[in-house]
Amino acid sequence: MNKKLYASSIFDRFKQNCRTEWHSYCHHEFVEQIGHGTLPIESFRYYLEQDYVFLVHFSRAWALAVYKSPTVADMKWASEILHSTLNTEMQLHVLFSERFGVSESDLQNAEESLENLAYTRYVLDMGLSGDILNLYVSLMPCVVGYAEIGLRLSLNYASVFDTNPYREWIEMYSSEEYQKLALKSISSLERLSQQLGGNSRYGELNEIFRKATKLEEGFWSMCMNPSIETSSWALLRCARQEEFRPFHLRREQGAISHRRRWTALGCRADGDAVH
Amino acid sequence: MNKKLYASSIFDRFKQNCRTEWHSYCHHEFVEQIGHGTLPIESFRYYLEQDYVFLVHFSRAWALAVYKSPTVADMKWASEILHSTLNTEMQLHVLFSERFGVSESDLQNAEESLENLAYTRYVLDMGLSGDILNLYVSLMPCVVGYAEIGLRLSLNYASVFDTNPYREWIEMYSSEEYQKLALKSISSLERLSQQLGGNSRYGELNEIFRKATKLEEGFWSMCMNPSIETSSWALLRCARQEEFRPFHLRREQGAISHRRRWTALGCRADGDAVH
Amino acid sequence: MNKKLYASSIFDRFKQNCRTEWHSYCHHEFVEQIGHGTLPIESFRYYLEQDYVFLVHFSRAWALAVYKSPTVADMKWASEILHSTLNTEMQLHVLFSERFGVSESDLQNAEESLENLAYTRYVLDMGLSGDILNLYVSLMPCVVGYAEIGLRLSLNYASVFDTNPYREWIEMYSSEEYQKLALKSISSLERLSQQLGGNSRYGELNEIFRKATKLEEGFWSMCMNPSIETSSWALLRCARQEEFRPFHLRREQGAISHRRRWTALGCRADGDAVH
Amino acid sequence: MNKKLYASSIFDRFKQNCRTEWHSYCHHEFVEQIGHGTLPIESFRYYLEQDYVFLVHFSRAWALAVYKSPTVADMKWASEILHSTLNTEMQLHVLFSERFGVSESDLQNAEESLENLAYTRYVLDMGLSGDILNLYVSLMPCVVGYAEIGLRLSLNYASVFDTNPYREWIEMYSSEEYQKLALKSISSLERLSQQLGGNSRYGELNEIFRKATKLEEGFWSMCMNPSIETSSWALLRCARQEEFRPFHLRREQGAISHRRRWTALGCRADGDAVH
Repeated sequence: MNKKLYASSIFDRFKQNCRTEWHSYCHHEFVEQIGHGTLPIESFRYYLEQDYVFLVHFSRAWALAVYKSPTVADMKWASEILHSTLNTEMQLHVLFSERFGVSESDLQNAEESLENLAYTRYVLDMGLSGDILNLYVSLMPCVVGYAEIGLRLSLNYASVFDTNPYREWIEMYSSEEYQKLALKSISSLERLSQQLGGNSRYGELNEIFRKATKLEEGFWSMCMNPSIETSSWALLRCARQEEFRPFHLRREQGAISHRRRWTALGCRADGDAVH
Repeated sequence: MNKKLYASSIFDRFKQNCRTEWHSYCHHEFVEQIGHGTLPIESFRYYLEQDYVFLVHFSRAWALAVYKSPTVADMKWASEILHSTLNTEMQLHVLFSERFGVSESDLQNAEESLENLAYTRYVLDMGLSGDILNLYVSLMPCVVGYAEIGLRLSLNYASVFDTNPYREWIEMYSSEEYQKLALKSISSLERLSQQLGGNSRYGELNEIFRKATKLEEGFWSMCMNPSIETSSWALLRCARQEEFRPFHLRREQGAISHRRRWTALGCRADGDAVH
Repeated sequence: MNKKLYASSIFDRFKQNCRTEWHSYCHHEFVEQIGHGTLPIESFRYYLEQDYVFLVHFSRAWALAVYKSPTVADMKWASEILHSTLNTEMQLHVLFSERFGVSESDLQNAEESLENLAYTRYVLDMGLSGDILNLYVSLMPCVVGYAEIGLRLSLNYASVFDTNPYREWIEMYSSEEYQKLALKSISSLERLSQQLGGNSRYGELNEIFRKATKLEEGFWSMCMNPSIETSSWALLRCARQEEFRPFHLRREQGAISHRRRWTALGCRADGDAVH
Repeated sequence: MNKKLYASSIFDRFKQNCRTEWHSYCHHEFVEQIGHGTLPIESFRYYLEQDYVFLVHFSRAWALAVYKSPTVADMKWASEILHSTLNTEMQLHVLFSERFGVSESDLQNAEESLENLAYTRYVLDMGLSGDILNLYVSLMPCVVGYAEIGLRLSLNYASVFDTNPYREWIEMYSSEEYQKLALKSISSLERLSQQLGGNSRYGELNEIFRKATKLEEGFWSMCMNPSIETSSWALLRCARQEEFRPFHLRREQGAISHRRRWTALGCRADGDAVH
């Protein structure tokens, strides 16, 4: 991203004041191994499943942003992100996941991890207990962090790009389109901040940014060791299925099918062939 | 609308149990005068302004429906209505209003009437205090009522159609596209009702339907006499303008400009030439 | 109220910038006729019924304030108001109303007026779409306005106090206890304003204050002419009753019983004997 | 608890259908070690800190229950729990914690764990996206589980009661007062379930109950190993403090002071003397 464009923004100020957390998130081992192409495929598949669940609740958060927007222009922008997440991004995610052996049904039945649940529900609570500015701040580490990560990996790991199984993921988040979306989000935040007293609420907002950044870091950490995560959360025991189960409940058999799939495919955790 | 398609639905049951209210709403004097082409243009202009404000809060209600949807399919449907309202319908509304001498700036600065505020905020409160089914029920009189009204007027008033200044409005809501949207809404309601215990919650839901229908009727009544409405609400005194004013506050100078416009245009309340 | 105590507060700034609206609300004909003791008893009875419904939704708004409070101290304060409204104030309201011939069942079955619905749902929407500061501002005209009105009437109308049938109402809101509550609310607002950027959000907050003040004025206006109100809202047609009807739906037969009561009691609208 | 009283309730049906999860929660190692009096004091202290944060968000959930209640009686009941949690239970918690060397300031500055955050925000999201019944179901495992645990421990571990350092905790939750509160909650749930279609929404509600039960189990698991928890959440790096920090942000220095305290007190993880 063109760092000049947001050098004096409140977003930049957040980053400067959360340097440690921001670095831990954007330079996380998970990210670096994606750049090198060495991330165990089991980790990536787990990430794909969790990210699908994340996108559902991320969409719900943008829906709240529409509800809370102070102007029609703000409503349109939030609605645009909501609409493209639900229709384009999730569809791409399904196609992309299939190439890694994760079916649409795996995605839909994925068991939501504790880290995932904690992050998205924190954002939603922020979205209802605070105003639109609180909500935007809690969403920024996700939207902009992925843009920074994508761009950095595309520049720093160019030499291994051709053989990198995760190349397409890097291309997606380093694409001009995604970079523009991140920049526009920073502009929107800046405008809302100026209208809604961002500077005089800085301390509070900065802590929301910090917490959301840590929750993003937790998301990567969780993906590094999917099996420990799942067993600590102790959700494996549950097998029963409901005919009608709202998505926020439809997580149970995920871990089981996940495990079963690894066995069925003979996958090992060392990143064997995907395509 | 093809009445057979929803003859045994919970929606039909609501209508049967609120026959008086439904008739008062769908056969309101405002509606009949639109059919005859005799509605005073001042009433229609006032309707156009209020309807613009209504669409903003209607969009917010559909955004809540996205947030509250139990499945991704439900989210997509609500998001579709939200997106097309914000981007297509509001744009058409602006173009259509211009032809009646109501500029986009008039729309954006319209003073929200008490009846309008009461209706939309009732729906939003229902949307947050109840579940998705409560919210859907409160939105149905608007979505389906307009389809019934549009279709009936297009059939019953065909003889005066060519000279009717409100012809286009009738065509819009009797169009195949809008009729399909209404039918799909009835289907969605039916599905949600079956999943979320609609029958055993029938009494409560029926009262929400009744109240929303009455609030729709109040909307027409308000449009029949825009000047009484405004003065009873006693908002005319206020002139000051804020640089940044969220849409839910930006209503003050509306009535004034409204009045000024009528004078400027030399309009009388008897429906003189529009185009 | 001791005006010095809040002379430099954001609350005082609101009042200064909404002088016309604040005066129209606090010096409304309804208020003056209460001071003189000349308000038609039908108006006061209608006020008692509507105020009961208002207290229900006012309590819901304070419950949202608990949910949105940034500190435990703020939670406790909002919870205190909530708890005393639900348990003390509503109980007093029931006893007080009985003395004017309005039974608890009349209160519970009162038909919510459009003005009442508009006001409370506006506050609730503000409470969920904005942050705690937005919510507080929208609640202030009610909490503090009643204190100003009560105090002024107790001072200015002392000569007719002994024969004033509404004396007790004036005493309630001019009481030391209520005056303290209003002052504490102003302090809470001031503190929240300083923590959450009140000054830089001033324009937005001022418009919320203005709108809520106008909605309070509309509440008085409605009480001056209960019959017009009810017929314009057109809710009289409905007779059916549900066994289980949530309070936000239980409004239908109210107006009917209201009318019936006036006839049964032989009351006229000119304030004949109450006790 | 008198099991007969709720033998045919929807609550009992939930328990029967989540037998494994309910047992894992109510017979968790943490619980048994409290019964035996062998729980490492570090675990209990960590529990005390996290439980304080939990009570804050638990109160917020009951505030939402007030907002969403369909009748004044329901509002009063939810408000009663809210008020007594904020004023009585939290005050008792502070006094009780002090006896274990955990100061009020430790409680107020405790770093919220991931498990804690996940549980409470799940409940709050349920409370806003669903209706009052969804919210009640998500709160039941906490309210009733503690009553079952308290009663069982008081009966089964009577022989070691006199020397048990956690005796008072057991007495609190086995007290007649707490048992009554749990029973009344079961009755409230039953009534709401009958009014709001609980049986026809059973599948959905059962999954909410299951998820909340698992999240409660996760809470105990987290307390068994406070240090792993904290490091996995990776929040230790943060030292900066804000002057004004809303409670949902005021968690950072907690873990540090926690650690510091153990060192200062020379505590070991094997349950050395408390008083």
